[in-house]
Amino acid sequence: MTHLDMAGGPEFDRIRAIARALGSGAAPIGDDCALIPFGGEFLALSTDLTVEDVHFRRQWLTLDEIGWRAAASALSDLAAEAAEPIGLLAALSLPAGTDDAAAAAIMTGMGAAAQSVGAEVLGGDLSRGPSLGIAATVVGRTRRPVTRAGAEPGDGVWVTGQLGGAGAALQSLQRGESLTPEQHRFFARPEPRVAAGIWLAEYGARAMLDLSDGIAADAPHLAAASKVAISIHLELLPCADAVCQAGDRIGVAPEQFAAEGGEDYELLAAMPPSFTIEHADQFTAVHGLPLTRIGEVAQGAAGATFLLHGAPIRLSGFDHFA
Amino acid sequence: MTHLDMAGGPEFDRIRAIARALGSGAAPIGDDCALIPFGGEFLALSTDLTVEDVHFRRQWLTLDEIGWRAAASALSDLAAEAAEPIGLLAALSLPAGTDDAAAAAIMTGMGAAAQSVGAEVLGGDLSRGPSLGIAATVVGRTRRPVTRAGAEPGDGVWVTGQLGGAGAALQSLQRGESLTPEQHRFFARPEPRVAAGIWLAEYGARAMLDLSDGIAADAPHLAAASKVAISIHLELLPCADAVCQAGDRIGVAPEQFAAEGGEDYELLAAMPPSFTIEHADQFTAVHGLPLTRIGEVAQGAAGATFLLHGAPIRLSGFDHFA
Repeated sequence: MTHLDMAGGPEFDRIRAIARALGSGAAPIGDDCALIPFGGEFLALSTDLTVEDVHFRRQWLTLDEIGWRAAASALSDLAAEAAEPIGLLAALSLPAGTDDAAAAAIMTGMGAAAQSVGAEVLGGDLSRGPSLGIAATVVGRTRRPVTRAGAEPGDGVWVTGQLGGAGAALQSLQRGESLTPEQHRFFARPEPRVAAGIWLAEYGARAMLDLSDGIAADAPHLAAASKVAISIHLELLPCADAVCQAGDRIGVAPEQFAAEGGEDYELLAAMPPSFTIEHADQFTAVHGLPLTRIGEVAQGAAGATFLLHGAPIRLSGFDHFA
Repeated sequence: MTHLDMAGGPEFDRIRAIARALGSGAAPIGDDCALIPFGGEFLALSTDLTVEDVHFRRQWLTLDEIGWRAAASALSDLAAEAAEPIGLLAALSLPAGTDDAAAAAIMTGMGAAAQSVGAEVLGGDLSRGPSLGIAATVVGRTRRPVTRAGAEPGDGVWVTGQLGGAGAALQSLQRGESLTPEQHRFFARPEPRVAAGIWLAEYGARAMLDLSDGIAADAPHLAAASKVAISIHLELLPCADAVCQAGDRIGVAPEQFAAEGGEDYELLAAMPPSFTIEHADQFTAVHGLPLTRIGEVAQGAAGATFLLHGAPIRLSGFDHFA
């Protein structure tokens, strides 16, 4: 059994303990998706669990949005492998008293997220449970998966979209503030970057992951899996507008805030040296989305270093509701 | 969108409400697995949710057994499609204070169930949650899936193994009684009938499902999906030993108890008229398991009729902890 190397942290210690327990009964664990050779290509599979009061609070989101987010977080794992989504299965735990309309609203949101990337709802299961919980499992296909392992010294590190928007929205919600529609959208309607992931793979992406826990937490995984040193220049991060405000409020540089905020679901990709700003402009023309070079891959001890105007900065990873 | 017809009951009303909400965004729903044409064969996918104090109580089972049952219930859906299992994904919701050893024990049980049918653990997700919950999602492959729709008038209705064992064990546990090792095994270690399902498909099975809610609740689904009338002769049901005792205790015929008890995970199959008791003997020789003819398929209004020595009997479906 070959496990991809994973960076530190209690969640990953637990995953490692599980992997040890499974021994030879488990496939390699540690990428965004499980990859299974099938019919000349690969199946990509991933499952993502969303639990009330851990990943969201009900008063912040409509049921439709709760469904969308749960599905989008799983579909984002397909994007990170450059896989084309096929479908989604939903296991819903529903507290007593949840009516059919509520269950249907959640599934409508999940279905809309799936349809937005060309997938369909394939099936599901319902159970009574102590709180609202959604396990979204996605399946996709790819001829050329892009894993986390493959970044090489000399590669550029690029990120799609803007960072920190979901984190800033979460912080405002936790303070009881109301959000602008744009802020709300960052939190409630993350878009799985499926087309972007496939495009980046076509342009030579060597390693990729989706930013679910923030670049501070996720970049080290890409570095560990690829066994390379990654430097991220925080001043280059493409920050969402609300992020400056949020950074000011808690007294950190907005770039640090953007790096530590989770649930943006943008893609982080190591692109070969031949990939230039002109290619990024083409990306933007096609996807209507920035693609920003924020760092580079070098030889050296596997890990990610974060620099603000050249000075190393210690960041903490995103922790749900910490 | 073509949905398979489903029998009545509140859970199925809810599934229908969800299917309506999804409209054209959903694949056909209502079989044991979603089936996706892929590379000249079919992918079969299913997800199953197991929740503490709904599907089990912790004092009744080891963590390893909780994991086995959760995985086996999902793998059983692959068996019902005559699919060959590939792998399993596990989404675990763990209450605060669950240690790594506990999570690893659950995954060990899930891994063992997967390995018992040639599958492996492909990946998973962990989250804090209010109680222990496990969403097991399985993927398999088949060139000739056997759905619930396909039974024809004149077919025999056959069942693998013995019925009522899990229900009798559950009843004893609820009364605070201890179980014999065999009784405990029925409840704690259901075996997904994967090899049996593939064998039955090779011998011409026209429709099949796995008995998760008891034959009283499940046979009507096969009848509805196939649009046929099914008669089940309760006195022919192959009852587990403990079932007579349990039936006596609650004052119903053991056959009725066996029909109403859930979680046996045996297969119910409509076999063509050419399938005889000699074939069933071959089945037993290969699988070490009885295969019993318990009824027949006829023309008429879609539905299942249960007869005890010729007299129609009204049965109620199994409801978890009802």
